[in-house]
Amino acid sequence: MSRIMRGVRSFSTAASALLADASADATRSARQPLAFQIFRDVPELRQLRRQIIRNDRTLGFVPTMGALHEGHLALIREAAKENTDVFVSIYVNPTQFGVNEDLSSYPRTWDSDMAKLEKLNEELETSSAGTGRITAIFAPTSKVMYPTLPPSSEIDGHGSFVTITPLARKLEGVSRPVFFRGVATVCMKLFNATSPDRVYFGQKDVQQTVIIKRMVKDFLMDTEVRIVPTARECDGLALSSRNVYLGSRRRNIGLTLYKALTAGANAYQAGKSSRDDILGAARSLAECVLAEQCTLAPNLRALYEVDYISLADPESLEELDCVDPKRGAVLSTAFKMAPLEETNPGEDCGLGDGKVPVRLIDNFILQPRE
Amino acid sequence: MSRIMRGVRSFSTAASALLADASADATRSARQPLAFQIFRDVPELRQLRRQIIRNDRTLGFVPTMGALHEGHLALIREAAKENTDVFVSIYVNPTQFGVNEDLSSYPRTWDSDMAKLEKLNEELETSSAGTGRITAIFAPTSKVMYPTLPPSSEIDGHGSFVTITPLARKLEGVSRPVFFRGVATVCMKLFNATSPDRVYFGQKDVQQTVIIKRMVKDFLMDTEVRIVPTARECDGLALSSRNVYLGSRRRNIGLTLYKALTAGANAYQAGKSSRDDILGAARSLAECVLAEQCTLAPNLRALYEVDYISLADPESLEELDCVDPKRGAVLSTAFKMAPLEETNPGEDCGLGDGKVPVRLIDNFILQPRE
Repeated sequence: MSRIMRGVRSFSTAASALLADASADATRSARQPLAFQIFRDVPELRQLRRQIIRNDRTLGFVPTMGALHEGHLALIREAAKENTDVFVSIYVNPTQFGVNEDLSSYPRTWDSDMAKLEKLNEELETSSAGTGRITAIFAPTSKVMYPTLPPSSEIDGHGSFVTITPLARKLEGVSRPVFFRGVATVCMKLFNATSPDRVYFGQKDVQQTVIIKRMVKDFLMDTEVRIVPTARECDGLALSSRNVYLGSRRRNIGLTLYKALTAGANAYQAGKSSRDDILGAARSLAECVLAEQCTLAPNLRALYEVDYISLADPESLEELDCVDPKRGAVLSTAFKMAPLEETNPGEDCGLGDGKVPVRLIDNFILQPRE
Repeated sequence: MSRIMRGVRSFSTAASALLADASADATRSARQPLAFQIFRDVPELRQLRRQIIRNDRTLGFVPTMGALHEGHLALIREAAKENTDVFVSIYVNPTQFGVNEDLSSYPRTWDSDMAKLEKLNEELETSSAGTGRITAIFAPTSKVMYPTLPPSSEIDGHGSFVTITPLARKLEGVSRPVFFRGVATVCMKLFNATSPDRVYFGQKDVQQTVIIKRMVKDFLMDTEVRIVPTARECDGLALSSRNVYLGSRRRNIGLTLYKALTAGANAYQAGKSSRDDILGAARSLAECVLAEQCTLAPNLRALYEVDYISLADPESLEELDCVDPKRGAVLSTAFKMAPLEETNPGEDCGLGDGKVPVRLIDNFILQPRE
């Protein structure tokens, strides 16, 4: 059976499929992938959602742009701990990419995404941590998500948008002016399509978490925003769908974000509160690593530009001169990893052969001290 | 008991009040005002809403800014025909008034509004037309509606907004650039607070109906938008909360909007389709009446300025050179009624003694011919 539901299955079919899945659980072998339904349009998804409400089940929703990695799976695991049903959306949202940004090169990995989700459902089935599992994937077309006008990535383009200022203009918004308008707009639509009890976002995109919490509060939306800690490699590198473009040389130097944040957070842990002390520690680490790289030959080094290192209020994202010990702060950074200047035979240069510039972001929450 | 619920009543109280109302219906005397609950905040309202869902009842929602007239009551009657429960909101939304507009002078008539709603509930109780009645009034504070930032009426002001362009910039949007941003934003919040099965808007604010339908479609909102024909005086004047400022002289001349639209619609009914023919008929009527007024003495005349007379597509609101007989058109107009130049002893000059300029709007739908 095709995984794609083309919007013609009736509710009763959808409901019976849900029930069939549930009753088959006991007898399903460990190897058999656990079924979830895939929806391309809203009405059928909504029917399943209503059935979940009627059965006093709960829904956790995890919006993604596909290219799933352990970070996404961590969100889904958390959602499955706290809800009986988990909906995952996979939609690469055009309106959050600027006209010169990487929409076309954003990784699209449908088959491996599905394999990961099926495997995760097997894990959830045997896990003792929670009772939930993935029951629906929502993979809409752009015509479903933007039914009237073609989605615009122009800052003054026409369309139906959610704007959240001044939050959306800070940090990432400085270099990506349409980004959070696109994110807020698509999340509003996805939340409306799924009516989740809880929505799950990763701490890694900290500005996104702040803006989504603000959107839910300001628009009186009936859902709870849950933030899950950033998933990291063993050495600390934050997982990102864009990491596949790094290759090993840039990946190693990309760890500098984590090291710089650690230096800043250590200063805070040691009792410092001032912007100069905390950001100074982070900046000097980032500068040291770059200076070191500059001394190396072009086929050995990886260069980067620090876009920003920020110390900001956790709710307003206003830059801070000094951390209020009652509120704590967000310490965040963005680096632009330059394309490799020269590559070596047999070198792992990542998807795109090291030619794709990669923008990396990361952050630490400096918890309140009082 | 105070009508105002201050957000402390628990759900069980709210639910039992709902049930008590229902069971008391049979024995209630015709004179006794039928109770509805009044909510100032969202959580308790949401609990009542959930109870309505659990009981397989349906909710119609009528958003208003108070100053209720027969037009609003017509919306509520329609909502009560199609739903078991009707929520009415009363909130004068600051973000839809420009900085120089009439927010402060917008009529606020809480006690008479409540009296009208209680009387309407009596009527609904004895009516054979439908089963529904008003079960809740939502009268939020601005802090509830705009929880984070003070609401901004500046076009570039900060806040969390819904923008719907280019629709919001046409017709009324030309002279009121923040108006539909404010309307869409507050309606999004109100819909999220109430989760209605159906929402009710009057045909009179035609651009508002087009924008709300667009918002519901584009943001994948789970509600049905119902449009109710414009309520009119016997002679055709469209009801409006602002009519109280007219007084009898301006009221009579204000009827010119209706007459001009009638002239245009008659041209269409007579088989004309071109902009020149339809708008020409409307314009020439408006010009005739004004020329006639200009010949009268200042204490006898009422002057006005025609802001626009428009012939536009029913969905895009793009101006039309010719009506597509398959789509029909919206024929709409706005007049600015000037303050009276001189008044006479004992003359009924309306609220504000004829000094308040009054902007009137009206429209006819030219139905498709095929």
